[in-house]
Amino acid sequence: MLLVMADHFRFEKLADDSATHARLGRITTTHGLIETPAFMPVGTQGTVKALTQSMLEDLDAAIILGNTYHLYLRPGHLLINQLGGLHRFMAWPRAILTDSGGFQVFSLTGLRRMNEDGVEFQSHIDGSRHFLSPEKSMEIQAALGADIVMAFDECTPYPATHDEALKSLEITARWARRSKQRMTELHSNPDEAARAGLRIVNPSQALFGINQGSIYLDLRERSLEGLLEIGFDGYAIGGLSVGEEKSAMFAVISTIAPRLPADKPRYLMGVGTPEDLVNAVACGVDMFDCVMPTRNARNGSLFSSRGKINIKNARHRDDARPIDEVCQCAVCGRYSRAYLRHLYMSGEILGAVLCSLHNVSFYLDTMKRIRQSILLGTFNEFRDSFLSNLARGQD
Amino acid sequence: MLLVMADHFRFEKLADDSATHARLGRITTTHGLIETPAFMPVGTQGTVKALTQSMLEDLDAAIILGNTYHLYLRPGHLLINQLGGLHRFMAWPRAILTDSGGFQVFSLTGLRRMNEDGVEFQSHIDGSRHFLSPEKSMEIQAALGADIVMAFDECTPYPATHDEALKSLEITARWARRSKQRMTELHSNPDEAARAGLRIVNPSQALFGINQGSIYLDLRERSLEGLLEIGFDGYAIGGLSVGEEKSAMFAVISTIAPRLPADKPRYLMGVGTPEDLVNAVACGVDMFDCVMPTRNARNGSLFSSRGKINIKNARHRDDARPIDEVCQCAVCGRYSRAYLRHLYMSGEILGAVLCSLHNVSFYLDTMKRIRQSILLGTFNEFRDSFLSNLARGQD
Repeated sequence: MLLVMADHFRFEKLADDSATHARLGRITTTHGLIETPAFMPVGTQGTVKALTQSMLEDLDAAIILGNTYHLYLRPGHLLINQLGGLHRFMAWPRAILTDSGGFQVFSLTGLRRMNEDGVEFQSHIDGSRHFLSPEKSMEIQAALGADIVMAFDECTPYPATHDEALKSLEITARWARRSKQRMTELHSNPDEAARAGLRIVNPSQALFGINQGSIYLDLRERSLEGLLEIGFDGYAIGGLSVGEEKSAMFAVISTIAPRLPADKPRYLMGVGTPEDLVNAVACGVDMFDCVMPTRNARNGSLFSSRGKINIKNARHRDDARPIDEVCQCAVCGRYSRAYLRHLYMSGEILGAVLCSLHNVSFYLDTMKRIRQSILLGTFNEFRDSFLSNLARGQD
Repeated sequence: MLLVMADHFRFEKLADDSATHARLGRITTTHGLIETPAFMPVGTQGTVKALTQSMLEDLDAAIILGNTYHLYLRPGHLLINQLGGLHRFMAWPRAILTDSGGFQVFSLTGLRRMNEDGVEFQSHIDGSRHFLSPEKSMEIQAALGADIVMAFDECTPYPATHDEALKSLEITARWARRSKQRMTELHSNPDEAARAGLRIVNPSQALFGINQGSIYLDLRERSLEGLLEIGFDGYAIGGLSVGEEKSAMFAVISTIAPRLPADKPRYLMGVGTPEDLVNAVACGVDMFDCVMPTRNARNGSLFSSRGKINIKNARHRDDARPIDEVCQCAVCGRYSRAYLRHLYMSGEILGAVLCSLHNVSFYLDTMKRIRQSILLGTFNEFRDSFLSNLARGQD
């Protein structure tokens, strides 16, 4: 079932939680090991916003995400390929996952026309016209050379009727098959890559399929059957956190995650809050990404063990305490809320840097604590106490 | 001659250059040693723009500058005082110098009225009215608690007639005397500080006087006589790099710097380019500050041993080389021009961070090489080769 190009990619399950579906695992890539459950900070344009690569290394980030749509438009996948691929371009020696570009095409661009072949869209930067298809997405992702690449899917809009969601998942299924075929071609035949103007910079790329079906459980299961038939190196749950109720989201996660192959990584795309992470881990999810820690940071919204705080709030004006008194991060070890508020109110770049550093640290630290608790067999207790602390709120 | 409050402040001259007026020295403060000649990165609003304090520590920055005008307006000197002073507020354990606020009042604010007493001005942030005088400037600087504070001066506008410059330096001289008197009062009498709403957070503040006189050498000498009569812990040359010709600027520096007391630090305010630094060191200057490395960085202008490069330039698009192939900084050790250009063109915060880090590193490294060459007795040779390399330009 492993793809021809992913011969160095491996997932090992190290432990199962007895009370939930949570599992401890390890992904091996040619750019290092990823302990799971893992959170992947989002590096949209080849940078996790406001953080240096060395800060991310210090935070023990094992894998980050890059956005195919953004990197294709700027600086261009062929330029990155010519410079040795995304790892070398952004000087990040650890693992990278790239998405398929589908989500951004459907959420960021204005005019677009979709047919069986793919999607024509206009760049959000300069309005120029482009065409993205499963084949094109694979070419871009092969050029970037991430360790994990995603099949090209249509992220079903929300809300969608049962019929719309069905049509959407059917095209996603056909695109998944074409994605695998094209990626296999590119990796098995240097001439194919050369014809696409690129060279294979990472001979060991794993391809993940994406489960769709909106909030309809029958469609989610149908989508899953299609993916299993094709066979992927890992399986993602897509199309969630797009406006649906939390209960609908968790109905999907709790139904689908446990049915994904136990011997492959399971990735919940674009989710979510700290609460979502621990709850989805309990459903058996291994991998997460979300812009929330970095985006919230730039808006002055900070995560803590006792819930979120808004650093803009006047009550932090003279507060000498750190963001979170139990947080071990470099920001909480050095800076006060009063100083961070001053930086934010003054529009200083350092405010964005420090708030991002804290928030990403909070997410990665949460994952570390999740992994430790699964190892120790105390995940359920950890989850209860983590969630009740979050709900208590800050003083 | 030492002020009552500066009993822990000390300057030692360690070596004189035989061919120039350059000197190697060491300033002792209660927040660490400063090897001179030294460059002080500018931390306008309590942050050296785009750099973390730990980056500055890694660059061996021994002292940074804070702006009295900005910190007075936001977050307010009394808030900073209440939180323990500027060192604690910004979590910077090394030395700090604050300026007097005069330069910003005269350059940033709109409506202002000046009389013998001081200057009324409107905040550039919200238009609110404020009054700054020598006494008020000393209160603010005592509240902030920097290791080195500056007498309140009028930065003579350029161009100024001989008569205008004379009037300006005369008021600056009277303000210098009042500055010293008020600072001495605040430090010697806790009730005086309490009446100003503050407490002395740094009992060891050194006060520097500022030489003015525009481009008129006779006025510069007259200003110097006045300062020496009052007596300060160090002497600054102000009012330069405000639009005058380089030759006029160096006429002042080369005339005044060598006549400043040899046993006190000499500080050239707001200057300048890398060329200016080595040339002013040759005139006997010990300390510098300038926004150029950080401001240029945010505009994509990068310093290198072979002159400036503009990272926006299309020729860097696919350039895998570092900014400066002989630079030892963390940015040049890791990132390509192509990546930095991409960050800049994409408006990414990391672009500002990395470009600032490189530029400040270039300035601090230049000072380190200046100090080494004075110690080795090869400063003049260093200066020649440094300047000719800068003039050669980049490939």
